[in-house]
Amino acid sequence: MVPGAPSFASKLIPDFFKLKHYVSKHSFADGNSMLGTGKYSDGKAAYEGKRIYLPKPGDFLGTAAQVKEILGGKGAGLAEMTDLKLPVPPAAITPTSECENYYNAGKIMDGALREHVRGAIAEIEKQTGKKFFDYEGSGDILLISVRSGAKISMPGMMETVLNIGLNEKRVEQMIDGGMDARFVCDVYRRHLQYFGSVVLEAGTIVENGENVSLFERALSAKREMQGVRTDAELSVASLRELISEFKQIIKEAGKEVPQDPFEQAMAAVEAVFRSSYGEKAMKYKEKNSLPPEMPTAVIIQAMVFGNLNAKSGSGVFFTREKNTGEKCIYSDYLPNAQGEEVVSGVRTPVTFKSLKECPFDRKIGRQLFRIADRLEKHYRDMLDIEYTIENGRLNMLQVRTGKRSGKAAFKIACDLVDEKMITEKEAVKRITTDNVLSVLLPQIGSEEKGGCKADAKGVPASAGAGCGIVVFNAKKAAKIADDALAAGKKPPAMMFVGKFTKPEDYSGMIAAGKSGGGVLTAEGGPTSHAAVVCGGNGIPAVVGCRDLRIDIANSRAFINGKEVKEGDFVTIDGSTGEVFARKLALVPPELTSDFKRVIGWANSIAQLPVMANADTPSQARQAVELGAKGIGLCRTEHMFNDKSRIGIVQEMFLAETLEARQGFIDQLLPMQRKDFGGIFSEMTGKPVTIRLLDPPMHEFLPDLVKLERAQAGRDAEGKADAAQDALLERVRALHEENPMLGVRGVRLLYLHPEILDMQVKAIIEGALDAAEQGSKPVVKIMVPVVEVPELFAWARERIDKVAADTLAGRGATLDYKVGTMIEIPSACLSAGEMARHADFFSFGTNDLTQTGLGLSRDDTALYIARLVSDGRLAHDPFKTLHPDIAKLVAMTVRDGKAANPHLEIGICGEQGVDPLSIRKYLYNAGLDSVSGTPMRVPLAIIAGAQLELEGNGIAR
Amino acid sequence: MVPGAPSFASKLIPDFFKLKHYVSKHSFADGNSMLGTGKYSDGKAAYEGKRIYLPKPGDFLGTAAQVKEILGGKGAGLAEMTDLKLPVPPAAITPTSECENYYNAGKIMDGALREHVRGAIAEIEKQTGKKFFDYEGSGDILLISVRSGAKISMPGMMETVLNIGLNEKRVEQMIDGGMDARFVCDVYRRHLQYFGSVVLEAGTIVENGENVSLFERALSAKREMQGVRTDAELSVASLRELISEFKQIIKEAGKEVPQDPFEQAMAAVEAVFRSSYGEKAMKYKEKNSLPPEMPTAVIIQAMVFGNLNAKSGSGVFFTREKNTGEKCIYSDYLPNAQGEEVVSGVRTPVTFKSLKECPFDRKIGRQLFRIADRLEKHYRDMLDIEYTIENGRLNMLQVRTGKRSGKAAFKIACDLVDEKMITEKEAVKRITTDNVLSVLLPQIGSEEKGGCKADAKGVPASAGAGCGIVVFNAKKAAKIADDALAAGKKPPAMMFVGKFTKPEDYSGMIAAGKSGGGVLTAEGGPTSHAAVVCGGNGIPAVVGCRDLRIDIANSRAFINGKEVKEGDFVTIDGSTGEVFARKLALVPPELTSDFKRVIGWANSIAQLPVMANADTPSQARQAVELGAKGIGLCRTEHMFNDKSRIGIVQEMFLAETLEARQGFIDQLLPMQRKDFGGIFSEMTGKPVTIRLLDPPMHEFLPDLVKLERAQAGRDAEGKADAAQDALLERVRALHEENPMLGVRGVRLLYLHPEILDMQVKAIIEGALDAAEQGSKPVVKIMVPVVEVPELFAWARERIDKVAADTLAGRGATLDYKVGTMIEIPSACLSAGEMARHADFFSFGTNDLTQTGLGLSRDDTALYIARLVSDGRLAHDPFKTLHPDIAKLVAMTVRDGKAANPHLEIGICGEQGVDPLSIRKYLYNAGLDSVSGTPMRVPLAIIAGAQLELEGNGIAR
Repeated sequence: MVPGAPSFASKLIPDFFKLKHYVSKHSFADGNSMLGTGKYSDGKAAYEGKRIYLPKPGDFLGTAAQVKEILGGKGAGLAEMTDLKLPVPPAAITPTSECENYYNAGKIMDGALREHVRGAIAEIEKQTGKKFFDYEGSGDILLISVRSGAKISMPGMMETVLNIGLNEKRVEQMIDGGMDARFVCDVYRRHLQYFGSVVLEAGTIVENGENVSLFERALSAKREMQGVRTDAELSVASLRELISEFKQIIKEAGKEVPQDPFEQAMAAVEAVFRSSYGEKAMKYKEKNSLPPEMPTAVIIQAMVFGNLNAKSGSGVFFTREKNTGEKCIYSDYLPNAQGEEVVSGVRTPVTFKSLKECPFDRKIGRQLFRIADRLEKHYRDMLDIEYTIENGRLNMLQVRTGKRSGKAAFKIACDLVDEKMITEKEAVKRITTDNVLSVLLPQIGSEEKGGCKADAKGVPASAGAGCGIVVFNAKKAAKIADDALAAGKKPPAMMFVGKFTKPEDYSGMIAAGKSGGGVLTAEGGPTSHAAVVCGGNGIPAVVGCRDLRIDIANSRAFINGKEVKEGDFVTIDGSTGEVFARKLALVPPELTSDFKRVIGWANSIAQLPVMANADTPSQARQAVELGAKGIGLCRTEHMFNDKSRIGIVQEMFLAETLEARQGFIDQLLPMQRKDFGGIFSEMTGKPVTIRLLDPPMHEFLPDLVKLERAQAGRDAEGKADAAQDALLERVRALHEENPMLGVRGVRLLYLHPEILDMQVKAIIEGALDAAEQGSKPVVKIMVPVVEVPELFAWARERIDKVAADTLAGRGATLDYKVGTMIEIPSACLSAGEMARHADFFSFGTNDLTQTGLGLSRDDTALYIARLVSDGRLAHDPFKTLHPDIAKLVAMTVRDGKAANPHLEIGICGEQGVDPLSIRKYLYNAGLDSVSGTPMRVPLAIIAGAQLELEGNGIAR
Repeated sequence: MVPGAPSFASKLIPDFFKLKHYVSKHSFADGNSMLGTGKYSDGKAAYEGKRIYLPKPGDFLGTAAQVKEILGGKGAGLAEMTDLKLPVPPAAITPTSECENYYNAGKIMDGALREHVRGAIAEIEKQTGKKFFDYEGSGDILLISVRSGAKISMPGMMETVLNIGLNEKRVEQMIDGGMDARFVCDVYRRHLQYFGSVVLEAGTIVENGENVSLFERALSAKREMQGVRTDAELSVASLRELISEFKQIIKEAGKEVPQDPFEQAMAAVEAVFRSSYGEKAMKYKEKNSLPPEMPTAVIIQAMVFGNLNAKSGSGVFFTREKNTGEKCIYSDYLPNAQGEEVVSGVRTPVTFKSLKECPFDRKIGRQLFRIADRLEKHYRDMLDIEYTIENGRLNMLQVRTGKRSGKAAFKIACDLVDEKMITEKEAVKRITTDNVLSVLLPQIGSEEKGGCKADAKGVPASAGAGCGIVVFNAKKAAKIADDALAAGKKPPAMMFVGKFTKPEDYSGMIAAGKSGGGVLTAEGGPTSHAAVVCGGNGIPAVVGCRDLRIDIANSRAFINGKEVKEGDFVTIDGSTGEVFARKLALVPPELTSDFKRVIGWANSIAQLPVMANADTPSQARQAVELGAKGIGLCRTEHMFNDKSRIGIVQEMFLAETLEARQGFIDQLLPMQRKDFGGIFSEMTGKPVTIRLLDPPMHEFLPDLVKLERAQAGRDAEGKADAAQDALLERVRALHEENPMLGVRGVRLLYLHPEILDMQVKAIIEGALDAAEQGSKPVVKIMVPVVEVPELFAWARERIDKVAADTLAGRGATLDYKVGTMIEIPSACLSAGEMARHADFFSFGTNDLTQTGLGLSRDDTALYIARLVSDGRLAHDPFKTLHPDIAKLVAMTVRDGKAANPHLEIGICGEQGVDPLSIRKYLYNAGLDSVSGTPMRVPLAIIAGAQLELEGNGIAR
């Protein structure tokens, strides 16, 4: 049934639909992709067509994308560093195609590849002058590592096998040859552990539903027995005991470590191949929306040992500060240690930021600094470098672009421009969605977070940081908020903590979100109820936190063992999944000058103007700061909801006669006039699109259920209240089964044109007021919920009439435009006729998605999340335009512009400023603008600019 | 703004949109249109190009449509009768174009037309041998009538002026010349009254908001004074007094009757022209969806007097019985009377059904019967003939096709076929929508109604007859019904009587409708709340009944003065607007053999198979009787709603675990299997399309508001009920804001596939059970509410799997098809992809209209009615397909069939069997079937057959 011929991927995974994830998510520019030096040109790269590639200085490597595609990210870095003649341990790389071959052959490695690997190791022997195949006990023994590396990094998800080449005999030979016994035994112990668990898949059992490593258990027992804290302190005797125990573990699993070094190497290569489609990797890819079909390269490299002796050690090195983006060196170094120990946190590394602070030989330090500088200039980006010093000799092990905060991304981009390393255009290209979002959401202050580690980590479910007092009961959270508001107080910041969330927790979750806190759950993934609700409502959330245990009976929880009681503070970072069992200060979003510079550059590159949806002068001001070129949607009903007005609005709708209604309308007129005047003044010279009343009447009326309950209560108590009974009757009569498809927008105005009259009058008068005060109002009046052209024709005629009367009354003139929302499928289908009456169209893609897909956003969030997580929908259609809705957009633009060449067409639904929607459907759709929430304006600008820079700009 | 160049009509009426009504409504075949004898052929008709036409025997008259278009209905009848050499008083006819000329010239009659009229009257003088222009007191005086007649009859809506040619002098001359003074005075009195009120527009005043005729008031005063009951009894003296009084009335209005007979004639012609666009006529056209642009012909004819003497009289004559269709003559005759008196009811006419009963000279009777027989043969239809005997001489005044009941229409059609007057095809062509509907709805028995007149008449708002006890309060009606049902009794038939209805009256109206009664209101038109709600729910209703006065304080009403109290019976006929202040027996719908014959003929002509929507074996049987060729939609949820099952269904949805749910599902399986088996057995050999569960979950659960109220009541009383609280929580959680766009249909099945499994298993097993008992099940399984192909692909795969397992379990084989509803716009937009997975499509045009136009049917009925009545929508889109939805249908058929040539496509929404939708959009849309409520199946069959007969059949 499923389309598409069977392919490599479809053999591996049951559902080919999953591929769709990737195509869309990753079509957004990867700003951190490595860029070559410019020496790349067309031509055959050195590794092309090779079944194994040994990097050499001077090799032609092709484009950055090509080298990563074929050699994987890690392999590409090694090849580049080799090319730059940096001290890289000799290595050989099998291209990613070998992994495919391996799978296509039915998980069989062919003889030819075996021979290529043998030859490559022989070459490494030659380069290092060490022996791998035939070690006779004299000279240096060559141990190798076999590592994975796909084109996109999946840290920890694929396998690595270290210390390959050791066996019983060689261990004794090495010790006999004078090598440090502790070192040799430790390396052998590690070898057995790695090979045993990774290659032979031995030593893992399930206890109480958890995977337990017998190797780790033996290690920890040994440390305890010997009374030491770290593995490095274990005695030779202990290590020898461990070696026997490890062998026993492997034997008990019915396995055996081959004694032949080459067989070890071959088995390790196969294990790496397999790990690229192992359970861990596949789950990671799914979770991170990576393509399932992503084979790994295999890197076979001479081992170097940072734990060889006191003149050895391992470190990581950042070329700029990753939180602030400041131009300063930053390195963590651990003497006498292997790389993995630097990040494990068991021993505390030495941090240094200058040559002066360098904890090892200055000469090596100077060499490292020089190399780092050279690499940064080569890659023209901030880098994250791994190095190992073996017996006083520096080895470069890995280079990649460094991870950085959003703030740092903007600073680094600007600095690199100022340092003339990159152009403004390249700076724009490097900014990611996450960079922009993290700048615009509250974050945990970097000083606060400091070096301190999170207490636990969960699934980052909804971006932004939150901090508040723990509440275990959602209803309680809602009540706390209600009580505070009733008492005229600001509710305390609350963190709703639960095993999971249920639909009935909704109000409590909203209350927690509004208070500045968030939601933390022990269970659930990115599509759980908690994640979906929080994501949809902008509530910071971490879900599926395995280290969170809730003891509801005692109103407490344990975060990685730390007890928190109701009322204690917890801080979460919904962007990273970090959880802190204490109060951390949050940094409110701040628009740095770097941010503004980059957005400015992008705004001058992007050709599709981005507007903002804003309802007040202050929102309008904020929107302009964020790069908006006008207001694409100003929702008048938000002004109606103002506390001081809601009473008047209710009376207006409840009025039984036109005369009574007119009285309330007359009270609203001056208020709306002032609202509109304020926005026009703020936005002088920029278009302001004001939408007439949109929601159904009952949204402004008292809650039906509350009134029903109150009456039932009165009935039970035998009390009567005729006025309340009458109110209930009226609200019942106005209740709608499906308000989304009910009498709202222009339909309501058609039945009550006096409201339209008032709003139009207020708009025209507000514009005239603004003009009198020196502003230049650019007025656009928009009619919502129009299903047929006849209805818009009616509205347009009435608007023109009221406007003419109002202008005549003031003896003034004013240009204004009248347009319609396109948010109902039939409006798209009669776009030509609609266009004949309209000055502009604006797609309401939220409602158009609801009607076009027949999905109520309020009611189907979980269902949609299920479809997305099952791979049946590529995206949530309320975030990224659905292809069918995109078809409606295309059809409407075509017919609308054909019927009226002067027609302006925009979008004011959320998808209009979604980078992916812009990229896939909107940028070249013939639109004149897009508009969305101010916070998303910069995303849309960046997306447009990046499209232009990629050569996918607007066709002219 | 409004499209369309200014035209004749747009000058006359403000809103050109209104024209749309007509185009659509009247595109349904007018089965009663007069058909010529067959002598018509191409060529110039005798009246063509003439400014006035004088009918002569032997004239070539062109087609029936043409002659009516140009000479109007009445003029056409006269021309035909003249052509047949029947005794028709000489006449002249101005074609309808003259009325247009008159308006186009600014309501001025040009000199040339005046001269044509003069010439025509001179010709009439010649033919009659009487004098009009220069009467000298000797010989016969010629009086003429000036009558209106457009192509479509609008009884009483345009003006007629009789007795033209009289003046003071001539009255005296005539009496002096020996004519009966009473007769002459009575004719003059009438002349003054007609001319004064119609031509001079004098003598009408407004009193208490009502129009009062001063002429009528004077007449009635005179009758009273003289102590007589009828005008015919007035003495010569009284008549002379009246003549003076009438002249005074005209004088007081500042007007004067011209003494010149020709000026009288010209003024009358102008008055008739004007009346064709007068207020009365325009309102009638709007109300009856007639084209506003419908000019009148003017018939100038010699007067004949049925009131001349005892050898005179007037009558109407039907060639067949109008209620039953029986072949028998029926005539009402009133001696010494003018035509209008026959129908006024002041004097009781003589009724005769044979020559033997004939109340006048047998010779004349024989002549009349001969003429009637000749006319019926000519027109090949049952006729309604008006005749006048003047002084022993028969005059034929009018002929038209006779109005008849639906039952009679079918009988007459069959009889005419049997009499070889018409072919079966012609019989099919003559059946109208109303004919079919009236046969399928309860009617007032014709014997019951008998000759008796209705007590009052209102607007026929919702077809069908109802009879019940009067209830003035809707809530009371609802309560009576509830109480009866609670007591296990059938509620009494109720007639809800009110000034108008309000939204809160809904349940009461429904209760009245269900009970067999109906709704009667004093105010409102065809788009009032009462009319819309009743129309939408099939409740018989008469609205806007002016003769209904409600005295709510005393719980009584007056129907044309007759008092009815609460509890008294009232009967209404919602098809005619008749109201009877008493109990009349209703005749339940009955499928006559005539009906079945005609439907059978139509079914063999129509090429688009018509299926029915039916949920039970008995409904299925009924559908087949009505002509259905299969079941296009069987709704499984209707079976869920069964009282004995709803508990199990509720438990199923409330179950918290899959295991618990499975238990309830297992209970439902055998029930559903039996349901399906029954239908398959009933429909052996015919397709049965079973739709899987469609509505949202909460439709099966207890009512949320009731639960809320119950809890509020408990709270107020301080009682607790944890189980009920928990139930409320669960129902709250399942509550949806917009259930129409919520988790329903395949969405619900996607989240609970175990329900799909059960239904598919029940369908397959039901079919196997039926097959084992000798039936031939034709199984089609339909998936509802599919928005994207991925979802249908999932459902199809699962259905195939369950079906395969079930068949394997029974060791049987079975052909079945799997298809999808197309009821969401996105499904139309991805029809090609959808078709690749599907065996069939079925448009759910109800939901497709809701989503496509963004209109909830429940919530927008009044709004839609407003749009329709304002002419902004041509039709209620839930009754007749909206053009935009038709576009979606066309697009889907095109893409679906292109992707899968074997795809079967049908419609199972109500519009699928709407004759207009079939005519405008569906018949040639490439569909394989349509399906709808059984009652509408014959309508769809007739519509298809008529299209074929008109040459608009399915293109092959």
